[in-house]
Amino acid sequence: MTADHGHTTHSAGGADGGNAAPGKSVRLAESAPLKLDCGVVLNGVDIAYETYGELNEDKSNAILICHALTGDHFAAGTHPTTGKPGWWADVIGPGLTIDTDRYFVICINILGGCTGTTGPKEINPQTGKPWALDFPVISIADMVRAQNLLIEYLGIEQLFAVIGGSMGGMQVLEWAVQYPEKVFAAVPIATAARHSAQNIAFHEVGRQAIMADPDWCGGAYLDEDKNPHRGLAVARMAAHITYLSQTALTRKFGRRLQNRDHVTWGFDADFQVESYLRHQGSTFVDRFDANSYLYITRAMDYFDLSERFDGVLGNAFTGTPVRFCVISFTSDWLYPTNENREIVHALTAAAANVSFVEIESDKGHDAFLLDEPEFHKVFEGFLEGCAEHRGLRRKS
Amino acid sequence: MTADHGHTTHSAGGADGGNAAPGKSVRLAESAPLKLDCGVVLNGVDIAYETYGELNEDKSNAILICHALTGDHFAAGTHPTTGKPGWWADVIGPGLTIDTDRYFVICINILGGCTGTTGPKEINPQTGKPWALDFPVISIADMVRAQNLLIEYLGIEQLFAVIGGSMGGMQVLEWAVQYPEKVFAAVPIATAARHSAQNIAFHEVGRQAIMADPDWCGGAYLDEDKNPHRGLAVARMAAHITYLSQTALTRKFGRRLQNRDHVTWGFDADFQVESYLRHQGSTFVDRFDANSYLYITRAMDYFDLSERFDGVLGNAFTGTPVRFCVISFTSDWLYPTNENREIVHALTAAAANVSFVEIESDKGHDAFLLDEPEFHKVFEGFLEGCAEHRGLRRKS
Repeated sequence: MTADHGHTTHSAGGADGGNAAPGKSVRLAESAPLKLDCGVVLNGVDIAYETYGELNEDKSNAILICHALTGDHFAAGTHPTTGKPGWWADVIGPGLTIDTDRYFVICINILGGCTGTTGPKEINPQTGKPWALDFPVISIADMVRAQNLLIEYLGIEQLFAVIGGSMGGMQVLEWAVQYPEKVFAAVPIATAARHSAQNIAFHEVGRQAIMADPDWCGGAYLDEDKNPHRGLAVARMAAHITYLSQTALTRKFGRRLQNRDHVTWGFDADFQVESYLRHQGSTFVDRFDANSYLYITRAMDYFDLSERFDGVLGNAFTGTPVRFCVISFTSDWLYPTNENREIVHALTAAAANVSFVEIESDKGHDAFLLDEPEFHKVFEGFLEGCAEHRGLRRKS
Repeated sequence: MTADHGHTTHSAGGADGGNAAPGKSVRLAESAPLKLDCGVVLNGVDIAYETYGELNEDKSNAILICHALTGDHFAAGTHPTTGKPGWWADVIGPGLTIDTDRYFVICINILGGCTGTTGPKEINPQTGKPWALDFPVISIADMVRAQNLLIEYLGIEQLFAVIGGSMGGMQVLEWAVQYPEKVFAAVPIATAARHSAQNIAFHEVGRQAIMADPDWCGGAYLDEDKNPHRGLAVARMAAHITYLSQTALTRKFGRRLQNRDHVTWGFDADFQVESYLRHQGSTFVDRFDANSYLYITRAMDYFDLSERFDGVLGNAFTGTPVRFCVISFTSDWLYPTNENREIVHALTAAAANVSFVEIESDKGHDAFLLDEPEFHKVFEGFLEGCAEHRGLRRKS
């Protein structure tokens, strides 16, 4: 497998001039097109990514972080666009769980995403217009193939670890299955080896909400200078509930009213939980593309790692050299512990090296993004053990 | 408390001519208006209802069935409009759990509903147009006050039982609290004494979906000859997921494809669960009014029975003579067992006569509408015991 010679289209610091988007970006798959699971080939794929820390001399300290459905490549530090902390700024950084004084951390905006990597919102070179629904439907495996182009471009033969939660965890599993020799350790968190009926159902609600918005324009809203923001906000609101837990919602909001002593006998956001949800919806539409939402949810729905192994998940991991640490959270009802445990059972059936930890938390699926000391401790311990095996410099 | 003299506006069998809606209907609260919790008074309230079985001589065998959010008054037999079985046809009928050879069963379309009782879709006598958003926001207590008008009109001094699941269960609790002397036995099923933050959140998603539809027209769609069917369908789809369970969805659909061998790499309903959900959405809009959906979900959100008792639920039941049977289902995550148990604890604190049964079922919240033999058995046993106490004729 040989890497394309890519060219950097723009980079951090605005080296290309005032118009440069923040973060790093490179166009790959130009000489050798990217063949997708649906059969389409993409000639030229823009990969937007960010790195933290320094790659060591033998390129053995690289960690790939895979983001979730609505994440992006700005995992650590301060997000250059929003000015807020990156989505995993609590975890990745100097001296943190994923210590950037020690590891070289890479985070890549997924294929189909909307923060710089090729996706439905980017320009289709064939037409000069945004891809919109002409963009091919992609799979989690395709996202990983695109990531691999960048890893090859960076000259990294083996990633020390691939780590991700939720859809990021699906990518971790795909990495271990597609490129076992390129992954030393894998940490799939709060995820599943196949998307459940209930999760497909919730995604379908979100997609229908977007497609029901007349401003979606059959997908061509960018070309028509519209934005299906109402539909996308509803999709986000529905999804957001699934990221939390009954307990977390009760603790955070209960039945408390929003800046009022009495209900209004109307349809305002009387309750704090309504106000919070509306805020989640309205801020999301400013940063996310509706068609990207359709494509990414679809890739997740299509995800069933056992499919190409005759339905036997264990066969996906036969002879794997990868060290796994599977982590779930007790109150996560989107990817409940039993679905994470299925991965562990399959790995065990394949006699793989696997640890499994279920973290006690009432914060729901989002626990993996939040300050959960036990989670970070377990996680850090696993990385430390793997680093020792790999012969990486000890934590000072 | 005196009943209005109502007049029957139309009745089953089309006695009023070809235009008569099916079922029974009466206009009440004409001489003594209905005062709502929001402060508005309604002069004249149309009550659409249906009855099954015969009222006995001393009017002691009447059972009031309270329907849920999207139900109507056609609980038993064949629905006159759809031709399908009524929503509780498995439970109510000759020789069934609620035996119409023995009991006189009444089911009333709730205030704010859309199958004949006064609600946002009916004509506002002040304007000659549909009420739409001029309809006052109602409470569960208001629904019960309206039901009481009919019970008084029928000359029934005490209901043998008030029974309902989900929002119907909230009405059962309100009946026991507002009119304890009028209720011999109460069966709240799969319900709660206060609507949780998570449930408010799901309702808000549904409302936002409806209000995001441009055809909602700020609520005035009937007047503008439009119908926010896309928004209402999305609301229904989201809600429908909450009525089932992860296990039930996996068993019914899993990841099975809909009439195809392979995914289409597109946004069709590839999966059976998607097709099922879309069907749920599209059939719902034919039978339900979008504004009614807003009003009824709002009434549920506002429901907190403890509120007018200084937040102490037990105080709502002090000295109650009513016999209670509270029933929950193990896989119901919309009104989970712990929320039903809160009712039981409050009743116990009030030294009330209460039985509590948690039924083992993997069918989720909808279990109360489905064929669950253990549920029906427990339920029948409770009614039998109460009938004996009440001196009603034994089951032959």
